[in-house]
Amino acid sequence: VKSLLFEAAEAVAAAVKAAAGSDLARLVGMGADGTPTAAIDRVAEDAILRKVEDFGNRVNILSEEHEFIDHGRPDTLVVDPIDGTYNALHGIPSFSVALAVGRKDLMGIRYGLVRELVTGEVYYGERGEGAWVDGRPLKTALWDPEESLFDLYLGRAAHPLAFDLAKRPRRVRNLGVASLDMGLVARGAAHLYLMATVEEGLRLRVSDIAASTLFVREAGGEVYDLDRNPLNMPLHPRARSNLLAVGDATVLQEVP
Amino acid sequence: VKSLLFEAAEAVAAAVKAAAGSDLARLVGMGADGTPTAAIDRVAEDAILRKVEDFGNRVNILSEEHEFIDHGRPDTLVVDPIDGTYNALHGIPSFSVALAVGRKDLMGIRYGLVRELVTGEVYYGERGEGAWVDGRPLKTALWDPEESLFDLYLGRAAHPLAFDLAKRPRRVRNLGVASLDMGLVARGAAHLYLMATVEEGLRLRVSDIAASTLFVREAGGEVYDLDRNPLNMPLHPRARSNLLAVGDATVLQEVP
Repeated sequence: VKSLLFEAAEAVAAAVKAAAGSDLARLVGMGADGTPTAAIDRVAEDAILRKVEDFGNRVNILSEEHEFIDHGRPDTLVVDPIDGTYNALHGIPSFSVALAVGRKDLMGIRYGLVRELVTGEVYYGERGEGAWVDGRPLKTALWDPEESLFDLYLGRAAHPLAFDLAKRPRRVRNLGVASLDMGLVARGAAHLYLMATVEEGLRLRVSDIAASTLFVREAGGEVYDLDRNPLNMPLHPRARSNLLAVGDATVLQEVP
Repeated sequence: VKSLLFEAAEAVAAAVKAAAGSDLARLVGMGADGTPTAAIDRVAEDAILRKVEDFGNRVNILSEEHEFIDHGRPDTLVVDPIDGTYNALHGIPSFSVALAVGRKDLMGIRYGLVRELVTGEVYYGERGEGAWVDGRPLKTALWDPEESLFDLYLGRAAHPLAFDLAKRPRRVRNLGVASLDMGLVARGAAHLYLMATVEEGLRLRVSDIAASTLFVREAGGEVYDLDRNPLNMPLHPRARSNLLAVGDATVLQEVP
């Protein structure tokens, strides 16, 4: 199952690259010159479905595009074929494929992989074993008020907490790609990531964060809901949640 | 002089890649595993200085690292060897080299080039001739309240205007790299970019924005100071300014 994750991510990278015509730098302009747009998600998901078939359909599939495909297996592959479609289509060079395997809910995820489709970087986590980026161990950062960096979802639907937090750190960033924003927490580049909105329909789905929640936790961080409970969600296509991830729980003293 | 820009950017890309050991995906983790840190700026600037020498020192040089090198020429090469050093050292995959040539002030810039050092994309503008990304024409976006995207500098030193603007659009992004944030405006991915701070020492230098101000204007956008005057700055190492860039001046109706 572990090699299924790596091979499926590789297949997505190849398929997206092929669809873009040539090199990754050109893909980044895709939407702009009218080339296939929503196509990118379909191409990516098809590559994953084919790979699961090659592996004898040993997992059920929960995907943003197809909802739930039941192969009568105990394990489910949770898929976000392209996380950051908006970026990909508008020339913002950050988007990824996110894949996780587990049972029942977020706490039951055992393997999680996110591949950055521009740089090719691979984040990987295994429950109880650790987390790595391109094979190097991931370690979240200790809270450092001087060099603080918060990753915040902002805009008209953002939760009021985000506007409050935007005034506190030295730096604010946001990639607009939950799996990669979580990657910044896991690798210690961000001390905190908040993706919370007043519009329920914009909240994160389990497919957006199944893989990254695992590798943030394995890297030494924690992921909460807005009540400060460790985040859990059923492996269900309709489940949505707000999310607060931290590298070091000490940063919570900054969160009103 | 035009080919000096392209060759110098190419030389920086090669030097940074060599310094990182191997491929670009690894460079992105550079700081994390203790590899040469501030070194990246030096390596990049040395590559540019060598290239200028190869071209017979036909330009003076204004650089973040060396201030002003006077070769007694009418034209000055304005250099930011690495824009986004913080990102590069913390594993955030967005940083660039920015190069421009002109006389006297920002309005006197004739050629501007920004190379994204992760994707390899090249933004290029020539006064009165247009602007391109990897050879395709750059065109800013018309204001679209429904699909609005603002690129905002936030954090504890941000100008109050930024917090106000953070509540208005559908999406907010920030790369933390002025030359590339300006690129998002030029290519129509962002409708507005605000980099304004209450700390004068954090404001943008002319070397940060000489190239990108030219290509945003050539792509159909405008770049202002906070008094809404078209931005101008002397080609001087100590000059600093706040900046508001727009793809379409209609968006100014959203700016209080």
